[in-house]
Amino acid sequence: MDKKYDFGLVGLGVMGRNFILNVADNGFTAFGNDLDKEKVDALIKEGGDTSKVNASTDNKVFLEALSKPRKIMLLVPAGKVVDIVIESLLPNLDEGDLIIDGGNSFYTDTDRRESYLSKKGINFFGAGVSGGAKGARRGPSIMPGGNKEAYQHVKPIFEAVAAKYQGEPCVTYLGPKSAGNYVKMVHNGIEYGLMQLTSEIYDVLKKGGDYTNDELHATFHKWNAGRLQSFLVEITSEIFEQEDDLGDGRLVDKILDKAKQKGTGKWTSQNAMDLGIPVPTIDVAVSMREISALKEERIKADELYDRPTVKHMNKGPLEKMTEEALYFSFIMTYAQGLHQLADASREYGYELDIAEIAKIWRAGCIIRAGLLADITEAFRADDSLPNLLLSPTFVKKVQGTVDSARELVAFGAKNGIPLPGLSNSLTYFDAYTSSRLPLNLIQAQRDYFGSHTYERLDREGIFHTEWEKE
Amino acid sequence: MDKKYDFGLVGLGVMGRNFILNVADNGFTAFGNDLDKEKVDALIKEGGDTSKVNASTDNKVFLEALSKPRKIMLLVPAGKVVDIVIESLLPNLDEGDLIIDGGNSFYTDTDRRESYLSKKGINFFGAGVSGGAKGARRGPSIMPGGNKEAYQHVKPIFEAVAAKYQGEPCVTYLGPKSAGNYVKMVHNGIEYGLMQLTSEIYDVLKKGGDYTNDELHATFHKWNAGRLQSFLVEITSEIFEQEDDLGDGRLVDKILDKAKQKGTGKWTSQNAMDLGIPVPTIDVAVSMREISALKEERIKADELYDRPTVKHMNKGPLEKMTEEALYFSFIMTYAQGLHQLADASREYGYELDIAEIAKIWRAGCIIRAGLLADITEAFRADDSLPNLLLSPTFVKKVQGTVDSARELVAFGAKNGIPLPGLSNSLTYFDAYTSSRLPLNLIQAQRDYFGSHTYERLDREGIFHTEWEKE
Repeated sequence: MDKKYDFGLVGLGVMGRNFILNVADNGFTAFGNDLDKEKVDALIKEGGDTSKVNASTDNKVFLEALSKPRKIMLLVPAGKVVDIVIESLLPNLDEGDLIIDGGNSFYTDTDRRESYLSKKGINFFGAGVSGGAKGARRGPSIMPGGNKEAYQHVKPIFEAVAAKYQGEPCVTYLGPKSAGNYVKMVHNGIEYGLMQLTSEIYDVLKKGGDYTNDELHATFHKWNAGRLQSFLVEITSEIFEQEDDLGDGRLVDKILDKAKQKGTGKWTSQNAMDLGIPVPTIDVAVSMREISALKEERIKADELYDRPTVKHMNKGPLEKMTEEALYFSFIMTYAQGLHQLADASREYGYELDIAEIAKIWRAGCIIRAGLLADITEAFRADDSLPNLLLSPTFVKKVQGTVDSARELVAFGAKNGIPLPGLSNSLTYFDAYTSSRLPLNLIQAQRDYFGSHTYERLDREGIFHTEWEKE
Repeated sequence: MDKKYDFGLVGLGVMGRNFILNVADNGFTAFGNDLDKEKVDALIKEGGDTSKVNASTDNKVFLEALSKPRKIMLLVPAGKVVDIVIESLLPNLDEGDLIIDGGNSFYTDTDRRESYLSKKGINFFGAGVSGGAKGARRGPSIMPGGNKEAYQHVKPIFEAVAAKYQGEPCVTYLGPKSAGNYVKMVHNGIEYGLMQLTSEIYDVLKKGGDYTNDELHATFHKWNAGRLQSFLVEITSEIFEQEDDLGDGRLVDKILDKAKQKGTGKWTSQNAMDLGIPVPTIDVAVSMREISALKEERIKADELYDRPTVKHMNKGPLEKMTEEALYFSFIMTYAQGLHQLADASREYGYELDIAEIAKIWRAGCIIRAGLLADITEAFRADDSLPNLLLSPTFVKKVQGTVDSARELVAFGAKNGIPLPGLSNSLTYFDAYTSSRLPLNLIQAQRDYFGSHTYERLDREGIFHTEWEKE
């Protein structure tokens, strides 16, 4: 091989194969590496022209084939495999080479690897990739973090392969160290919230309005043409149309109601708690996946308890109410996730630009939505906005839809339809917009039993009271 | 000193001094140690008779004064201080001595210390102590974990000093390693939930019924004589009576509504997520403390948004509704925490006896409540109960109060009063008792965009569908 390849990729699963073919489509030559010969052969076959797309099971051949500095992306499972792959490449790398971890690695793992490799002169990037298999092939959203100068080497390739929103690529350099993995983690946390919310709306329409799958399809399809336009609303509409190829009727009705998770939503919630940032819609989306897994206990409990008979609503008002409540709670979910990012940026020194993040989420990724164009504008107008809810343009959007969220949460509570994502979005809003909360009582209790002290409204200082009546 | 002392205690802050005086009251001799000479002198003075209670700033004198095996309790701040104290004692300890960490140490720290010290022949215990300063003095609930045989040395002292419930001491050996700290952590998580719930009821009574502080006092006082009988309801009633010694009126109205936290509630939530156990009432109690801390943002947001005018309710129905809703949501909070303990027991090998835990919580600790006697009975009747909600005696209690929780959550949603603890308790109940949840849609979405596969209701196996319409 005389002519060297522009881009290397380790891990030729669905994501890796699709990503490398995407690179080749955009005029760059690419070389793949996987221990599995079948995957290597499949890529070579699908690529067609080995001068453009080639692959090998041998990682020396792979490294030899790449132009320097080497740009090597890893699309392998997060965790130990990443370290194993790095160690296997390391002896044959040259100073200045780039390794880009495209998986959902935990951000502290990325920091550790970046620190370890930078001492050896290797540039390590954590770059979240969102868009699923189709996104990898046709244009994902890419969230890279690492060394800013070294990023220039891979920038033309990433900008070419990324999804485009009105011509602008959905990728940008986000910040140092694990900034990219952190942003992708919170992206996924938001995704958990949005998915939980759509499942609640599905439940309400079915139980409260007797919607058929065709009606559900039509409703989500219509919504996707309006302000709820988003990838998740779009695929939800399509899901209701899918026939069951193993039986009669629609597939969605046959799917077991246990939702699995791979941990990124949980990490988002856990880390938000470490930062002290409230993300209750995301938290409860994680809880609901956990409750869903307890299917056998749920069946037992269902037999023990009576449930209210659901009062039916007319479809017109129900549809208006659910559309507005879903829009309201989508806003609350983005607000929570972006609030977390702004705080993490200060805490971890990422120097994130929230408007730029919203911008690269407008296309390609799972949480892409029409709303993100508005969010981009809101943070462009005021880059120090502590929370989306404080943006004047969002005040109008929220004010115009919150009443439906109130009605719907009340409807779910009275009729025994669990709407935890919607109710946490509403209580988040009501608490965040309350200048006075009843937590003065909690401080009083803490001071009462634990002498934890309190502050006062009317004067500065730290106070303690001997509360107990002896 | 010829006669050796029965019990040693390092850290003579309020908790430590009170605990050691409690030990002495119960006929054991005790010796304290603190670097602060003022604290040492204060204890000697308060103890009165140095043959019963003595203390020194010198830890060699301290160790020399104790009978063997030495029983040394640490009541020092959790974290590095514990390690520093251990290292300072270690050179002069003998094989078989006991160190008992009485602080809120994180359970993995306890495991690390236990493993380190057991290699040196020292028995290390993590023993959560609850009850605040007054509890330490008059009888706390103690939650010890560690080596079972070594526990026998300290058992008579702990049983003597612990709170008594109908004559039974609120302490028992809980399990190996960090079992004691873990149980105390979840105790505190439950405490977060119960406190959040009482603050919400306070808010509803004030905003929805115009309750004065005197009426609030009377209401909580009355409730404390009924099935809501508990330490937290009792002190809440007293808090509303407390006059402000720095001004006119009641103190509770002057306290800043920012609730602080020391981390145990957060740890409970984060660890529940690692276990995959849903504790949404505890999660949102943590979130609300976070939101409360954002006082400046809340003031800004309050100015930007309209709020519904609260519709007033008659005091009679409001009081009935709030009492039932609070009882219902207290049950949900205990159910969540105990569910977490049962799962942690399997995961970490604690072999916890849930009935015994509920039993030692009946008196002395912050979450003591009449309900805990019923909970003890429920787990005694069926020690394999996966969740309190599956106990037949609890079905009745829950069924009789859930309608008020429904009404109250709906009232809060419509009137802009944030009731996140109550609504998460309700949606937890509604989801846990649903044999079918809408999370089939989430699995469909996951399979659609990420090929994550799904299971089916009608047959075994793992399935994947090519959903996309090209």
